[in-house]
Amino acid sequence: MPTLRLALCQVNPSVGDLAGNAELVRSWSRRAADAGAQLVAFPEMVLTGYPVEDLVFRRSFVAASRAALDRLAGDLAADGLGDLPVVVGYLDADGPPQIAADAEPGRGARNAAALLHRGAAVATYFKHHLPNYGVFDEDRYFVPGDELTVVRVGGVDVTLTICEDLWQAGGPFAAARQAGVGLVVNINGSPYELNKDDIRLPLVRRRAVEAGATIAYVNMTGGQDELVFEGDSMIVGADGGLLARAPQFVEHLLVHDLELPGATGDGVGDGEELTDGLRVVRRTVDTLPAAPTGPAATGGTIEPVADEAEVWHALVLGLRDYVNKNRFPSVVLGLSGGIDSAVVAALAVDALGPSRVVGVSLPSQHSSEHSRADAADLATRTGLDYRVEPIQPMVDTFLANMSLSGVAVENLQARVRGVILMALSNQEGHLVLTTGNKSELAVGYSTLYGDSVGGYNPVKDVWKTLIWRLAKWRNVDAVRRGETPPIPENSIGKPPSAELSPGQLDSDTLPDYDVLDPILIGYVDGDLGREGLVASGHDPAVVDKVLRMVDTAEYKRRQAAPGTKISMKAFGRDRRLPVTNRWREDG
Amino acid sequence: MPTLRLALCQVNPSVGDLAGNAELVRSWSRRAADAGAQLVAFPEMVLTGYPVEDLVFRRSFVAASRAALDRLAGDLAADGLGDLPVVVGYLDADGPPQIAADAEPGRGARNAAALLHRGAAVATYFKHHLPNYGVFDEDRYFVPGDELTVVRVGGVDVTLTICEDLWQAGGPFAAARQAGVGLVVNINGSPYELNKDDIRLPLVRRRAVEAGATIAYVNMTGGQDELVFEGDSMIVGADGGLLARAPQFVEHLLVHDLELPGATGDGVGDGEELTDGLRVVRRTVDTLPAAPTGPAATGGTIEPVADEAEVWHALVLGLRDYVNKNRFPSVVLGLSGGIDSAVVAALAVDALGPSRVVGVSLPSQHSSEHSRADAADLATRTGLDYRVEPIQPMVDTFLANMSLSGVAVENLQARVRGVILMALSNQEGHLVLTTGNKSELAVGYSTLYGDSVGGYNPVKDVWKTLIWRLAKWRNVDAVRRGETPPIPENSIGKPPSAELSPGQLDSDTLPDYDVLDPILIGYVDGDLGREGLVASGHDPAVVDKVLRMVDTAEYKRRQAAPGTKISMKAFGRDRRLPVTNRWREDG
Repeated sequence: MPTLRLALCQVNPSVGDLAGNAELVRSWSRRAADAGAQLVAFPEMVLTGYPVEDLVFRRSFVAASRAALDRLAGDLAADGLGDLPVVVGYLDADGPPQIAADAEPGRGARNAAALLHRGAAVATYFKHHLPNYGVFDEDRYFVPGDELTVVRVGGVDVTLTICEDLWQAGGPFAAARQAGVGLVVNINGSPYELNKDDIRLPLVRRRAVEAGATIAYVNMTGGQDELVFEGDSMIVGADGGLLARAPQFVEHLLVHDLELPGATGDGVGDGEELTDGLRVVRRTVDTLPAAPTGPAATGGTIEPVADEAEVWHALVLGLRDYVNKNRFPSVVLGLSGGIDSAVVAALAVDALGPSRVVGVSLPSQHSSEHSRADAADLATRTGLDYRVEPIQPMVDTFLANMSLSGVAVENLQARVRGVILMALSNQEGHLVLTTGNKSELAVGYSTLYGDSVGGYNPVKDVWKTLIWRLAKWRNVDAVRRGETPPIPENSIGKPPSAELSPGQLDSDTLPDYDVLDPILIGYVDGDLGREGLVASGHDPAVVDKVLRMVDTAEYKRRQAAPGTKISMKAFGRDRRLPVTNRWREDG
Repeated sequence: MPTLRLALCQVNPSVGDLAGNAELVRSWSRRAADAGAQLVAFPEMVLTGYPVEDLVFRRSFVAASRAALDRLAGDLAADGLGDLPVVVGYLDADGPPQIAADAEPGRGARNAAALLHRGAAVATYFKHHLPNYGVFDEDRYFVPGDELTVVRVGGVDVTLTICEDLWQAGGPFAAARQAGVGLVVNINGSPYELNKDDIRLPLVRRRAVEAGATIAYVNMTGGQDELVFEGDSMIVGADGGLLARAPQFVEHLLVHDLELPGATGDGVGDGEELTDGLRVVRRTVDTLPAAPTGPAATGGTIEPVADEAEVWHALVLGLRDYVNKNRFPSVVLGLSGGIDSAVVAALAVDALGPSRVVGVSLPSQHSSEHSRADAADLATRTGLDYRVEPIQPMVDTFLANMSLSGVAVENLQARVRGVILMALSNQEGHLVLTTGNKSELAVGYSTLYGDSVGGYNPVKDVWKTLIWRLAKWRNVDAVRRGETPPIPENSIGKPPSAELSPGQLDSDTLPDYDVLDPILIGYVDGDLGREGLVASGHDPAVVDKVLRMVDTAEYKRRQAAPGTKISMKAFGRDRRLPVTNRWREDG
């Protein structure tokens, strides 16, 4: 059996940064070559970043992606890496790119992979199964491919597949068995979800057995707006056995020697039609880097980590990349002394270091002594840049000039805090971090344009009970490493309060979080209705109260005002573009 | 040829209000029966409202829609309307509805039409062509139907189709010709876009000729979050001739006598497969209301109106329905004396009457005399509830307690205004209206949580140059009707200014709007790139400046903070629910 040294490059591209992403491919290809690799694979749409959303409809962007691919092929050859086959994801489209003023929008775009060799793309593959659920809208963006691309590399038949091709049955993996390939390369932009890694490995094992081939699964890492990619790249043998697995949430070069079955030559031929209407397209790579000498390369495998560790690392990476890819020098957040802002501050310090994090205590007449002390304690523990900005003078001026009472006065305090944080942002350039957890967002327990202001919310998708678990885990982990636990025990232990009126507690308005969260999880995450929740054992009266709060809080979750659409391209409704986007028409 | 009196009910349902929408069908069916109708059609998903978005995934909602349909059929019969065939749109799903805690999410949901007769649904049809572009995500939500439902009604073969079935070639309209039907009923939830009516009529004509059948096109009217439905229901003969057409933006009963070819009985039979894999399902309605006596009914046609009139009526309806369907008693907005707030105030007064509109002048030290005077003049002209809340005391208190300069001071003023409007909203229950136009949103010329606060923005999708045209049209229309023009000529004529610093003008920062808007329209609406815009004759330096502003303002258009997703159902990213939603699990 031929031996092939494979390198999977688990890298962190940025959406729209074609030049930077190409540079990433060049530098990691060099690292792979230095490690003796004979075949290298990068993630899905690594050249453009993923997901590019409505950039797909811009012909100029499609043309730029194709031009960047051609340039990259040439640059790799110029770098002395021409013989090394490099698989990269990019954006392609049917027909020549159009830049005329009357060009059609980019219908017919393709989520594409290319195998680069000796200065050219010698093989291309277009993603066959397009996901159109959850965060994916690929039926809007792409036309599915109908070819199975088989490239003979060092005597081994290798087929290229992309992400969802793995998750759906049939298609390229079934066709790969028919074509008798030895290796399936599967390139991914597969966003993180808690425990998705526990599903991914069994899935890759099953597909390997179905395809009767080794699977090389490479995923990107890094944050892109609300998505974070975990990596978790891996190699699984044709028998379903795990051969190598990369760690989560970091860039990583996974190099592993594979013994693969040589192509027999009696497989299906070029142009033959296989399952699901896939036609075989055969290509051959004639030259390869010399077989490496010395010890065999093994990528190794990783140990699973606790849920809290996994989520913490996901949140740190998502925050760090949002801040850095959008080129913010620093972040600012309000420190109430409560658990949510304490956890966000600790995440921010882990992501950016204490010198890039400004924490502001914003006490009012309702702020308790322990709140102020806990905020100061957090600042000392983490070393962040700590400020105190009392809000009472501004609150009093509003109250002196308007007739306000009740919830209007409560919200006023939260909004004055929002104005102060945004003023610091304008004055000093910080990104404002929002600290509302998912339970609060679900039931609308927050002030519009008050505690909800900010450019990024690291805990937006974290239920309150998980916030507490994360805080405890982070403190224990600090002790384990001999460091100061960042989060004051007081902030973890005390009953939650918004402190907008005397003696106010969350429990005045909401069920206890250990009652609330399971209902919310069933309703929001599980799409259960009232009857399903009651059947699960929840108190019907509490269920009714909670569901009504969730149903009427949608406007708060939007925050941006909806407005009547009168055109084909209304902002927000029709147009879906990343916030973090390095693409500029003028280069 | 048999004569059939057809009634198209152009009604205004509310998303989630199953009981209210069923009541709407009953009362309009009664009106149709009183007008002698022998066949009645209501819009797409009239029972659930449209679009229901992720409510589709809730089994309890699907079950409620099916139960509401059965109940409606019985109620119509109990109302003495059993013999009248009534076509309604609703939400269905494959298999029995599940309410168990472990139910699968609602995969297999159907965008469905039913023909109700004698207390039961005697025929159903599932939408075949699913739109998945622009505002539509129906590939996420629905499974396409593969049957052509042909119902013999009064000796005429009638087929049921839904919305997109009309917009795509082939499918049910081509199959209708093969099946030799006399009438195609097409029920719609087709959102308004400027000039879409000019495309719709030729399309219906073409499909009528292709099908060789009369087409009865019924569309809903009313506002639903960002969408507004215009009605524009119509009947087109098999020769493509327009027979009747309803007005836009109002509920309307279109009753028209049709002479239709009798079914010959030698057409394709039940179960036969036609084009596009559609299998024929035949049903028969045996009894009909008696043929009406007296003069023939003719629905009449309408005259086209100016673009400005069409947009104005769309914006008024969208705003009115957002306010009323969400049960807000009133609205509040800031009146700067400028054109945007003047147009929004005039829209609000047209939508809700002057007693439900609060206009607040929020002068600062930079507000000019003419600004204050123009705001007061607008209030006098429209009769709205006028207030003055000077912002300087609050601004001064912030400035005394913080060290702010430059843009931080400019934004502070806008944010103090936002706090005041939100405080009035909390204190008095008004919905805050936002007044930023589409040009501003595109280039980010606004203050986050300042002038951008609010629950609804009627002019969110209106370019600045169209704002001026609307203002002029509305004033001229007032004169034509012998009324006071609502918008001060000063507000229309003066150069736009944010008045956040001394002598500030929009033109200090932005190109003139008659230069800016065509570039924005090309880039945003047309997906043109830099080269396409330059090829259209725009100054390259201006294009570069404008495109960079648009590309870096996406975070402002979002307003709500993105946050790292760690679950299958992150708010905002995965979960798409209407704000205006009357559905409550507890009824």
